[in-house]
Amino acid sequence: MSDTVTAVTRIVHQFAECWNQHDMKAFADLFAPDAEFVNVVGLWWKGRDEIRRAHELTHATMFRDSRLTITDVSVRFPVPDIAIARSRWRLEGHVAPDGAPLPARTGVLLNVLASTSRGWAIIDSQNTDIIDGVLSRPQ
Amino acid sequence: MSDTVTAVTRIVHQFAECWNQHDMKAFADLFAPDAEFVNVVGLWWKGRDEIRRAHELTHATMFRDSRLTITDVSVRFPVPDIAIARSRWRLEGHVAPDGAPLPARTGVLLNVLASTSRGWAIIDSQNTDIIDGVLSRPQ
Repeated sequence: MSDTVTAVTRIVHQFAECWNQHDMKAFADLFAPDAEFVNVVGLWWKGRDEIRRAHELTHATMFRDSRLTITDVSVRFPVPDIAIARSRWRLEGHVAPDGAPLPARTGVLLNVLASTSRGWAIIDSQNTDIIDGVLSRPQ
Repeated sequence: MSDTVTAVTRIVHQFAECWNQHDMKAFADLFAPDAEFVNVVGLWWKGRDEIRRAHELTHATMFRDSRLTITDVSVRFPVPDIAIARSRWRLEGHVAPDGAPLPARTGVLLNVLASTSRGWAIIDSQNTDIIDGVLSRPQ
């Protein structure tokens, strides 16, 4: 694996490590100041501060004891300073608003990263839940 | 609006125009040969041909009479030859596997585009349904 693939893959794994430590300051520091993030229900956060606050809220509640595992990462470089990293993940230990445990779920996370003077930073994320056995959204 | 923003925005609108004409050859031609696409249930298609075949299948069935509207487009350029275009959309006229009409749904589509000798091409797409009123996936 090349050094750049290793460096980008490491950021994706740090995403999960910060999540599992519920350290949303360290989590937000993986992002560029003007990064954007769309979560699995289409909430669109603009900027590192919004991304941090949104995750602080969920990690104080539904995700407080949750554990995120990155199960694979695929990295492409359309130009040398930009990486497209797509990963599959599994989430366990999250709860409903009433505190009831919820079953594990899986998804696909896209991160676009840029090479900066501080190393690779996430400039855009979009997350999508996997729903098995269907071609599109069941309703 | 700058010429490059106009050119990228135009590709996003062509995505919807090809969808509404159910012309999956023209749709696929918006993508680079090695483009990837993750749809709203986490299906991960690799390459323009897979993207075309997957959409041919759904446009012969559930999406045959569907209509996609792009309601807004936001474009950023992390480097001059790469664009991150995020849009909100609304889909109407799609049906369940048994042919029953389904309610309209909305979502957020991320397209990453690269400037090529043929103009801007989509190199990566990820799509996420909007679910109103929740912070994360209801289960």
